Amino acid sequence: MSAPQKLRLGMVGGGKDAFIGGVHRIAARIDGHYELVAGALSSSPEKARESGEALGLAADRSYGDFTEMAKAEADRDDGIDAVSIVTPNHMHVGPAKAFLEAGINVICDKPLASTLDDARALARVSPKNGAKFLLTHNYTGYPLVRQARQMIANGELGTLRVVQVEYPQDWLTEEVHNKQADWRTDPSRSGAGGCIGDIGTHAYNLARFMTGLELDALSADLTSFVPGRQLDDNVHIMLRFKGGAKGMLWASQVAPGNENGPNIRIYGDKGGIEWMQTEPNKMWFSPFGQPRQLVTRGGATPIGSDGAIAIRIPPGHPEGYLEAFATLYADFADVIRGDDGNADVLPTLADGVEGMEFIMAAVKSSDNNGSWVGLSDV
Amino acid sequence: MSAPQKLRLGMVGGGKDAFIGGVHRIAARIDGHYELVAGALSSSPEKARESGEALGLAADRSYGDFTEMAKAEADRDDGIDAVSIVTPNHMHVGPAKAFLEAGINVICDKPLASTLDDARALARVSPKNGAKFLLTHNYTGYPLVRQARQMIANGELGTLRVVQVEYPQDWLTEEVHNKQADWRTDPSRSGAGGCIGDIGTHAYNLARFMTGLELDALSADLTSFVPGRQLDDNVHIMLRFKGGAKGMLWASQVAPGNENGPNIRIYGDKGGIEWMQTEPNKMWFSPFGQPRQLVTRGGATPIGSDGAIAIRIPPGHPEGYLEAFATLYADFADVIRGDDGNADVLPTLADGVEGMEFIMAAVKSSDNNGSWVGLSDV
Amino acid sequence: MSAPQKLRLGMVGGGKDAFIGGVHRIAARIDGHYELVAGALSSSPEKARESGEALGLAADRSYGDFTEMAKAEADRDDGIDAVSIVTPNHMHVGPAKAFLEAGINVICDKPLASTLDDARALARVSPKNGAKFLLTHNYTGYPLVRQARQMIANGELGTLRVVQVEYPQDWLTEEVHNKQADWRTDPSRSGAGGCIGDIGTHAYNLARFMTGLELDALSADLTSFVPGRQLDDNVHIMLRFKGGAKGMLWASQVAPGNENGPNIRIYGDKGGIEWMQTEPNKMWFSPFGQPRQLVTRGGATPIGSDGAIAIRIPPGHPEGYLEAFATLYADFADVIRGDDGNADVLPTLADGVEGMEFIMAAVKSSDNNGSWVGLSDV
Amino acid sequence: MSAPQKLRLGMVGGGKDAFIGGVHRIAARIDGHYELVAGALSSSPEKARESGEALGLAADRSYGDFTEMAKAEADRDDGIDAVSIVTPNHMHVGPAKAFLEAGINVICDKPLASTLDDARALARVSPKNGAKFLLTHNYTGYPLVRQARQMIANGELGTLRVVQVEYPQDWLTEEVHNKQADWRTDPSRSGAGGCIGDIGTHAYNLARFMTGLELDALSADLTSFVPGRQLDDNVHIMLRFKGGAKGMLWASQVAPGNENGPNIRIYGDKGGIEWMQTEPNKMWFSPFGQPRQLVTRGGATPIGSDGAIAIRIPPGHPEGYLEAFATLYADFADVIRGDDGNADVLPTLADGVEGMEFIMAAVKSSDNNGSWVGLSDV
Repeated sequence: MSAPQKLRLGMVGGGKDAFIGGVHRIAARIDGHYELVAGALSSSPEKARESGEALGLAADRSYGDFTEMAKAEADRDDGIDAVSIVTPNHMHVGPAKAFLEAGINVICDKPLASTLDDARALARVSPKNGAKFLLTHNYTGYPLVRQARQMIANGELGTLRVVQVEYPQDWLTEEVHNKQADWRTDPSRSGAGGCIGDIGTHAYNLARFMTGLELDALSADLTSFVPGRQLDDNVHIMLRFKGGAKGMLWASQVAPGNENGPNIRIYGDKGGIEWMQTEPNKMWFSPFGQPRQLVTRGGATPIGSDGAIAIRIPPGHPEGYLEAFATLYADFADVIRGDDGNADVLPTLADGVEGMEFIMAAVKSSDNNGSWVGLSDV
Repeated sequence: MSAPQKLRLGMVGGGKDAFIGGVHRIAARIDGHYELVAGALSSSPEKARESGEALGLAADRSYGDFTEMAKAEADRDDGIDAVSIVTPNHMHVGPAKAFLEAGINVICDKPLASTLDDARALARVSPKNGAKFLLTHNYTGYPLVRQARQMIANGELGTLRVVQVEYPQDWLTEEVHNKQADWRTDPSRSGAGGCIGDIGTHAYNLARFMTGLELDALSADLTSFVPGRQLDDNVHIMLRFKGGAKGMLWASQVAPGNENGPNIRIYGDKGGIEWMQTEPNKMWFSPFGQPRQLVTRGGATPIGSDGAIAIRIPPGHPEGYLEAFATLYADFADVIRGDDGNADVLPTLADGVEGMEFIMAAVKSSDNNGSWVGLSDV
Repeated sequence: MSAPQKLRLGMVGGGKDAFIGGVHRIAARIDGHYELVAGALSSSPEKARESGEALGLAADRSYGDFTEMAKAEADRDDGIDAVSIVTPNHMHVGPAKAFLEAGINVICDKPLASTLDDARALARVSPKNGAKFLLTHNYTGYPLVRQARQMIANGELGTLRVVQVEYPQDWLTEEVHNKQADWRTDPSRSGAGGCIGDIGTHAYNLARFMTGLELDALSADLTSFVPGRQLDDNVHIMLRFKGGAKGMLWASQVAPGNENGPNIRIYGDKGGIEWMQTEPNKMWFSPFGQPRQLVTRGGATPIGSDGAIAIRIPPGHPEGYLEAFATLYADFADVIRGDDGNADVLPTLADGVEGMEFIMAAVKSSDNNGSWVGLSDV
Repeated sequence: MSAPQKLRLGMVGGGKDAFIGGVHRIAARIDGHYELVAGALSSSPEKARESGEALGLAADRSYGDFTEMAKAEADRDDGIDAVSIVTPNHMHVGPAKAFLEAGINVICDKPLASTLDDARALARVSPKNGAKFLLTHNYTGYPLVRQARQMIANGELGTLRVVQVEYPQDWLTEEVHNKQADWRTDPSRSGAGGCIGDIGTHAYNLARFMTGLELDALSADLTSFVPGRQLDDNVHIMLRFKGGAKGMLWASQVAPGNENGPNIRIYGDKGGIEWMQTEPNKMWFSPFGQPRQLVTRGGATPIGSDGAIAIRIPPGHPEGYLEAFATLYADFADVIRGDDGNADVLPTLADGVEGMEFIMAAVKSSDNNGSWVGLSDV
């Protein structure tokens, strides 16, 4: 059951033609914890106003500017409890800083910023009244991703050795121009990374979240295959983790036949786990020397499950991407209300900074012909 | 984007410990068309009140009784626009009649009733002010189910010949007692059919919806495998459709390893289509003499798509059961607001009556050693 | 390692343009137990001679007639140890009788005959010198099919309840004329059953072999969908087994997208098993209340394996149809040499008669509008 | 149909307890082109003799030594037409040289040698009488692998960009001692590479064969995870091909849940192809902007097939590893008999040398912290 009293939510970005803003709004609605009441929905004032109307915002809470919005909402008695920032990468840090300093909790899309300096600057902000921050690395909300994390932490795989993580897409196989493609391939809005920042960082975060392994160094070979494209559209990385595990990361926007296919395979000296987003309600668990087991979301004899694994409907009935996203929103609602039970599985500002370090390390390594670069080298 | 002005929704049933009520509430929230404002959430007045509080209903709109609720809401200026009926089968018709006669739109879970007489009686009701009725055969909301329906209507499979439809589960493999199991295995609440009514009717509706074929007759062999169980837990049916197509329907609650696996395979003289709920974002399309094609939700070169195919996120990112359910709610919101664009794909009261006829025909055939029984024979 | 001394093999049928004869020859070669030395390869003497030359047979052992061949080979000191009969259905019984009565072991393709009378007559023959008979229901040679049989016999599934067995194909979706299609759709050569005899009998045998269940009665609906076709091309059957288990059998030659897809799902009160020929090196084992396990051919922790499960290469490297077929040949070579270790898993003449009874029972039931017919009713 | 006159085959290695020798013998038998008549089956004279007896070799053709065998067989009128060399890696070159110089055709397992010097020395040998050489990179015999090669050569994928190739196993996850494991983990018998030589070279060859791309340079990170193991058991490599395509290669012997899983994904600017050995009769073909197609072995509307694609049984009936291996033997039989029709798809001595260069380049790169190394740098 949802909570009796909804949290008041604002949004920066997410106007007409935006993609991820709509996703955030559905995610906020699914479990009934939030009500959207304010927004600065576009950098174009007119589009901001039109979008606000379309979403049913009161006219005086549809702002033309996030700075004005942060100030005004902080001053209202019924001001927003949290704001979702769903702008392109280069427009994350400004609003995040403004709302945190206004004492308003922040939900921010990834990657955290378009430059590492911006990300680090944000990390130094002192949030007023202890305002909290959530980075929406949404794949961490999948029940089986969280279950795998816990199984690994419990030692079900033994000492980890090999991590193969991938995120293939095909939508940029040819030169394409639309709102989504344009900012993602423009260094001034996306930052120094293209594919590496848009989806490579998801793959890295997924590996990091599930395994708990810390990166020692990486060796990257980034490529821009489509003529005229300024940013990478294919990412090959070899990974070395502290403690000796090794890995590979492949992300691509030019792999025909792949729609949105993040997947991960993790092997230790006692067993293996394999998961892919296209069939997110299933996960292979292979204890060494025994048959593979098909672990299902909420299915028979869950191994390593705990309270962080949100399940809404019986096993077999598929849940998907929106529910995983909603779980982050639901857990963050708990945090806002003072319940930190699942706070340890929520992506943080520190994860956001690390994600930016990962992007910059990959770019630096690739620029240096694949030399090994650590996160502290950028 | 969701609509600026939400519809006011009430609910009958769906209190604490209920399953399907929670599903309806999420479905109503996902696209932002409804706000839950009233309810008669339990036949126990105390539980009704507690559940109303937990859901944030105003105290005066948390009713102890659906009759009272229908009357009171019809009288309010801000009365509900629609009511969701999510009680056990034998408690569908009473509330449905009350709300329709009060001029309030009805969203009702399936099967329509626990007896065919009840179902037919409901079909004779004259709704006040043209109140509408939606039966939540939710699998019809899956994008690829609707796309398949349209491809078949367009003749992509040619003349249909063979329909294999299944719905295997395993949760009643052993004797089990809980709220969900108890009413489903109790003839006084579930009706004359057990497995046939709970999931067999879903399978039948899925075949009927996708193919457009009308049943000529069926031959059924219903079995109750678990000792002491009063209703069938396994359903074997041979189908003959008007025009000559043939089919088989298997539904089971005692098939270990199957969580919730409705699936269908349809073959005509020009090609075949195969779809299963456990991987709902994929569908096989096999034009005869050509390689199988993997059609994906919203994917490359959609064949036969139209406005009825609701897609919220890019292909590859999985949508699931709740989104399919939500699509019925969203389309019905359009109908309530006067937009009938997708009305032709929404399950109706007539579908509910036919579902009951199907259940009774299967029971009758099985009681007569598998004799062929038509829908008009019950 | 293969045996030092090969058995001498003859063949009836299998000349130019034949399909199954070539399969038998490969199966006989794979494990090195047989050498083809004689044949009556075609009913056309010229084609018989040409085919014999092409296969390297000595001219005096390439016969124009099986009767002559049986006599001549029985008289030679170096006469054949066994003969493979790979003619169309109506030409099985004649040669089988001739060779058994000549004291030569017989390997015969299925179904055993084109009429039940012929089959029963053959079963009454007294083989000279204890000559043995093998019916090549080749799917029984798959390692995982045998492993499943043993797991079921060991009680891993508990008491069996439901058996779903299928054999879909699509090659007769349209009217087609070639050597393979012509005799299979001709009652005078194929018998009273079309699809039911060609592949339905495989499905029945697979269910029978794996479960050990005996048929009580069946209710069949056979259809000939392609205009002008004289024999059934789609088979729908409900099954009742002695002891209470129920089943469904679907076989079709008109299901576009299906090449050769025999598959079976078996459920008991303790668990389920699912296997399909298109991925024959994998099998699902689902103990009730536990995650599904993917059992692989020769893989980790085999459950219920025994000497009858022939494995030639390490797990992961796929074996297929020809190896399964070869296992029957290899096991029969053991039998011929006096080792009966695997004799109990080899299909016999009695299985052949039962297969014919099954075909005739299905035809009779279908002719009587799906009335329940037992094997003893034909 | 097989050929009337079989080729006479000898074998070096492959005695009792050997694995790959038995595979070669089955491969040689499947299509009926060879008869095994001679051997030096073990380096232990007694085991050689016993193994010869078990395989039915004449006593005078079961040799204790390959040098003696080469000489004796070359001198016989009925001497062998070809010899299969199935010894551990370090024992390939000696016999290969001896037989080629004796004018006897050689079929040799991979990798070609345990050192690059040995491999290059062999490549300089002048075969007597034009004796031919076949390297059994057996995966190239799979019908769909050859079909993919031809589709790519025909431009179906456009300009190639990304190649992801893998070969995961799990059998060396723990320390293990048996005949197969011992020599593969011993540098004196296996050479400088462990996993890279045993299966990494298969993956490289598969990519090379299917794409036709030539390697420009590689960056490798080889690891030995199991304590005390002297050779690598996990291989991570980034690949750069001439012309600009990039790739990744992962091979592992320590990935629990993976039996023998070579697989490859190839993407160009017009489409993608994906194939995995565990389901070798299927292949994904994804023309950009269209649905994925499931191409099957011999299935509907083959694209780019030609005479090199050997198919023995109808689509749907699975063929496997042994048939792929047999296809190399069959094609080489054609070559020996003077038919070079499929010679261009058979792995050669030059491929063997390149395979050794690949192994040494990977070892060198890994020893130099992943520096980029070309094949000409070793």
